Amino acid sequence: MTAFMDRLAEGVRQKRSPLMVGLDPRVNSLPESIKPSKNAGPVEIADAFREFCYGVIEAVADLTPVVKPQVAFFEQLGAAGMVALAQVIQKAREAELLVVVDGKRNDIGSTAEAYADGWLGNQSVWQGDALTVSPYLGDDSLEPFTKVASERDAGLFVLVKTSNPGGALWQDKQLVDRPLYRQVGEHVEMISASTQGDCGYGVTGAVVGATYPEQLAELRAAMPHTWFLVPGFGSQGGTAEGVAGGFDKNGLGAVVNSSRGVIFAYNNQAAGCYSPENWQGPVRTAAEDAVAQLRAATNAGKL
Amino acid sequence: MTAFMDRLAEGVRQKRSPLMVGLDPRVNSLPESIKPSKNAGPVEIADAFREFCYGVIEAVADLTPVVKPQVAFFEQLGAAGMVALAQVIQKAREAELLVVVDGKRNDIGSTAEAYADGWLGNQSVWQGDALTVSPYLGDDSLEPFTKVASERDAGLFVLVKTSNPGGALWQDKQLVDRPLYRQVGEHVEMISASTQGDCGYGVTGAVVGATYPEQLAELRAAMPHTWFLVPGFGSQGGTAEGVAGGFDKNGLGAVVNSSRGVIFAYNNQAAGCYSPENWQGPVRTAAEDAVAQLRAATNAGKL
Repeated sequence: MTAFMDRLAEGVRQKRSPLMVGLDPRVNSLPESIKPSKNAGPVEIADAFREFCYGVIEAVADLTPVVKPQVAFFEQLGAAGMVALAQVIQKAREAELLVVVDGKRNDIGSTAEAYADGWLGNQSVWQGDALTVSPYLGDDSLEPFTKVASERDAGLFVLVKTSNPGGALWQDKQLVDRPLYRQVGEHVEMISASTQGDCGYGVTGAVVGATYPEQLAELRAAMPHTWFLVPGFGSQGGTAEGVAGGFDKNGLGAVVNSSRGVIFAYNNQAAGCYSPENWQGPVRTAAEDAVAQLRAATNAGKL
Repeated sequence: MTAFMDRLAEGVRQKRSPLMVGLDPRVNSLPESIKPSKNAGPVEIADAFREFCYGVIEAVADLTPVVKPQVAFFEQLGAAGMVALAQVIQKAREAELLVVVDGKRNDIGSTAEAYADGWLGNQSVWQGDALTVSPYLGDDSLEPFTKVASERDAGLFVLVKTSNPGGALWQDKQLVDRPLYRQVGEHVEMISASTQGDCGYGVTGAVVGATYPEQLAELRAAMPHTWFLVPGFGSQGGTAEGVAGGFDKNGLGAVVNSSRGVIFAYNNQAAGCYSPENWQGPVRTAAEDAVAQLRAATNAGKL
């Protein structure tokens, strides 16, 4: 096996695309041809989620190296949703896509180890390639994740500077000379620098929002061994120009996530005419547009 | 329905017990009579976890008002584990115990709403009474949880000062005049004060570790409308005297969690002789001991 960030770098290069497609199924946004009836229970909705995500994966597989299923939407359906999530992860792997599980998990020591063991790597039960992780519980809560990820060639993305406005409440708190998110970022960079693979990036990535272009560029400079997962592109207002500062000179070091903007593109007026059965058409077009924008604004994959 | 913290207060009073029993099943710690074979798969292990948690609930139901299943250990088994978790939650409800789901979940806006909708209240799919939540994503990430919890008479416990040593790394960072955990605590208290029920406690509780008795007492004074979930008692070194400062003058305002110290008590030398089939005996004795210690050190339930 190859280290996760090296596989990610290779995927970005091969497909000339730093686009990450977020798999965030929501029942009201599903295509009419898949949408379950109004009084459908969790099992039927989970079936629809699975079919939808399979379709999205099929539509975008050659345009993106990596997908990011959002656990919350599957978990919301109970155990039936979790069965569907496992199937969606498998489908993405069959399509040779990397899978970053967006669970924002963490806990203290031995419990963190259970999360890491469950989610990370081929030998885990969920078989994710990487997992998003929350830092509030401190360094000893990140250690089990780093250890398991290193052993299994898996990856992590630690929340550093999130894309939502309210994230600033704690993340931007000024400490002695710099805000909290900078210190969290420095801690993550320390782990990354000590675990770097061939591409120069370590086992621990960072979540840094597209909605804060200046901080993104500032963190890129401060965290040269840390790959960024950049949410907030498109629907949340982040632009291709705004995310450019998150890339290194080789066009690597960042993947830019789009969820709603791609996967529900058929609900967009601008999608124009399409037959309900061809909902994958607008999805594919939206992914192509996103990749084109990102290629134009960054030198992603040009290497 | 009655507000969650009022139901919790009532439970502590009725059973004269502020003990919370953590349901943290681990395969190597299971009683011999339940332990699955060495090469058991997730389905068999999940069956064992269910049987074990049913047994623990049976053994301690009259000694505690509330149990706290740790999602990580069920999630580690994949979808089979999540099925078992749903069954364990149902079993606890049948035993008229409150269920605080320990998931330390959070995400931005609409995704946080999906977690809240999935976990909180009778009408949710998982049917938890309350959920532990991480604060790093800021105020707009807590709002959907507070809203859903208020509507459904459910509760929340926000991480404020966690029990692990590494939690200090960010939580103890000094801001202008006080550390981060104090500011997170003040934000939680603001929400609690505006949502208080009959017992004087609001919809949002706080996780405050037993391993920091001084900060626990300091936060008790600073957060008069916020119920505390106190982890770290027993196994992690927290004492009954140390947690006393987390209670109000009526012996309310805190539940003290014990996981390993109670549920795996039969593995303890001090458990003495017991037949493998009677593993519930030492579990019950350990819970009784914990309750006795907590009653002696606090005025919990004396009201």
